[in-house]
Amino acid sequence: MVTFTVFKGSNDGIPKKSNTTKPDKLTGDSVLLRVTASGLCGTDLHYRHTDMVLGHEGVGVVEALGPDCHLLKKGDRVGWGYETDSCGHCNECLGGNETFCSERSDYGSKNLDQGSFSSHAIWRESFLHKIPDALSDAEAAPLQCGGATTFTALQGIKASDTVGILGVGGLGHIAIQFAAKMGCRVVVLSGSESKRAEAMKLGAHEFIATRGTTELKVSSPLNRLLVTAAFPPNWHLIAPIMAPRSVIYPLTVNDGNLEIPYMTLISKGMAVQGSVVAPRHLHREMLAFAALHQIKPIVQQFPMTEEGIHGAMDKLAKNEIYYRAVLIPA
Amino acid sequence: MVTFTVFKGSNDGIPKKSNTTKPDKLTGDSVLLRVTASGLCGTDLHYRHTDMVLGHEGVGVVEALGPDCHLLKKGDRVGWGYETDSCGHCNECLGGNETFCSERSDYGSKNLDQGSFSSHAIWRESFLHKIPDALSDAEAAPLQCGGATTFTALQGIKASDTVGILGVGGLGHIAIQFAAKMGCRVVVLSGSESKRAEAMKLGAHEFIATRGTTELKVSSPLNRLLVTAAFPPNWHLIAPIMAPRSVIYPLTVNDGNLEIPYMTLISKGMAVQGSVVAPRHLHREMLAFAALHQIKPIVQQFPMTEEGIHGAMDKLAKNEIYYRAVLIPA
Repeated sequence: MVTFTVFKGSNDGIPKKSNTTKPDKLTGDSVLLRVTASGLCGTDLHYRHTDMVLGHEGVGVVEALGPDCHLLKKGDRVGWGYETDSCGHCNECLGGNETFCSERSDYGSKNLDQGSFSSHAIWRESFLHKIPDALSDAEAAPLQCGGATTFTALQGIKASDTVGILGVGGLGHIAIQFAAKMGCRVVVLSGSESKRAEAMKLGAHEFIATRGTTELKVSSPLNRLLVTAAFPPNWHLIAPIMAPRSVIYPLTVNDGNLEIPYMTLISKGMAVQGSVVAPRHLHREMLAFAALHQIKPIVQQFPMTEEGIHGAMDKLAKNEIYYRAVLIPA
Repeated sequence: MVTFTVFKGSNDGIPKKSNTTKPDKLTGDSVLLRVTASGLCGTDLHYRHTDMVLGHEGVGVVEALGPDCHLLKKGDRVGWGYETDSCGHCNECLGGNETFCSERSDYGSKNLDQGSFSSHAIWRESFLHKIPDALSDAEAAPLQCGGATTFTALQGIKASDTVGILGVGGLGHIAIQFAAKMGCRVVVLSGSESKRAEAMKLGAHEFIATRGTTELKVSSPLNRLLVTAAFPPNWHLIAPIMAPRSVIYPLTVNDGNLEIPYMTLISKGMAVQGSVVAPRHLHREMLAFAALHQIKPIVQQFPMTEEGIHGAMDKLAKNEIYYRAVLIPA
């Protein structure tokens, strides 16, 4: 038997070091990895009180391969994200939309004994993604969920579109870079002025501090808006700056209801589009795009120890991470 | 000067007969019509208390043409709908999306001295649509708004999709026919069983009476849902029967808020899509499609008199029209 170090959620919300034991012999297309970096995502906070191994923005090195593997080899750097398996035979899987497979393995649903807050993990070969040389382990980790989520929400836009990014945080600061490199005019909406310089440096063309304003002004109406802030925006403030036939992506998970005036949606032919992480083909396009354009998360590193994870989680809960926490095995 | 008979909204909500006077000489590309039929739409009820000529589902015969007309000729049967002009030079107009032109002339916004509850009207040639021979005046009238609205909301579907139509009324009974002839599996959701036979005859493949149920069952999840009922549905009841990546079109205008759980939208990658009537190119495709497939509204005729209009409006307000009222000049 092989034993990994793992870090799990717990009753008191403080991550606990533990062990996971797996059979020595890899079967089928399973791949054993040694984790080299893990991003910390808002969703990890949702599970901090759950008895499961945390983490779903993993990067590691292939240490061993099952007999049916034929794509990866020992020593390859690979990443994985929110989804680690799917049925492979339903129409969503067959159509390249396996993120909507009803039998998928998602973070928090199956394989609760391993995650990316871990010394090692075993996943199916086809759900692992080679990391381009241009990206370091720490840079690649937040792309596995944050990058995939924002890249997916930018699919289908035109280079000539104007894209609004609401919120400059773990997702927002990556979304700004993606949208800018896709050729779009990028308008950043943030509470205060504090992140203006950073947003412009990341590629924004305009920056609007929204707190206390009763009317927003943009040089060009938004064709798409990615909501990456922790709280839903004031739709009455947002509606007037949306273009006809524009689309709003509420990316930040919220247990409440979306509440938006029917007439706003109807009269402008606007849509609210739900969206999750990327299916694998898009995940890989995202990594290649990031490598080509040197799109890199700004990361704050913490040691992958009980104290390190706890500290990072507490900072994230207080919205004090600049901009994405990455855990590095101690 | 030429004088028309028109019917206007009034303080007490009872339509009043009146007159509109226009110059004798037609200028530019304007066309004088004699109205032969007008549909009655839910939006007309919104304006029954407004001092304006009512009606926006018009069909008529060309009686005279301005000097710049070159598409129509005297005697042509034509229809018009919610939109009767747009700027022609903005990007929405140039892109064939003139329904979102910010300078458009919509029902209730401009030209308040003429409508389709009228003996005559004068409109720009390019906003009039030839009526195919296969459609009578009375059949063609409800297509000018109700038909255009439902046809637009069905754009982009695949023939192999499953389409839900919520509500069997003025819009719903046309939407069933369009969706069925587009090749889709059509699932009708209605309060009671009373419209089952009719819905199936119009082309539905399944019918579900929703009142009092706590769980809906469909043979195939819905890829698209057109909400044509007077009240928003219970989203918690609807969400489980929606397919991944499906789209909901709330077509019935409501002053309130759409309230839908964020997690429903996000986890299934669903969208709520606002939509209005059809731009002209699509309006004409809709008429040709209706003619080819013999898609005809079921109409209840009323005389275009104060009493006739008042009677039709009262029935519509009580949801007693079967299924679309059409006013015929007395």
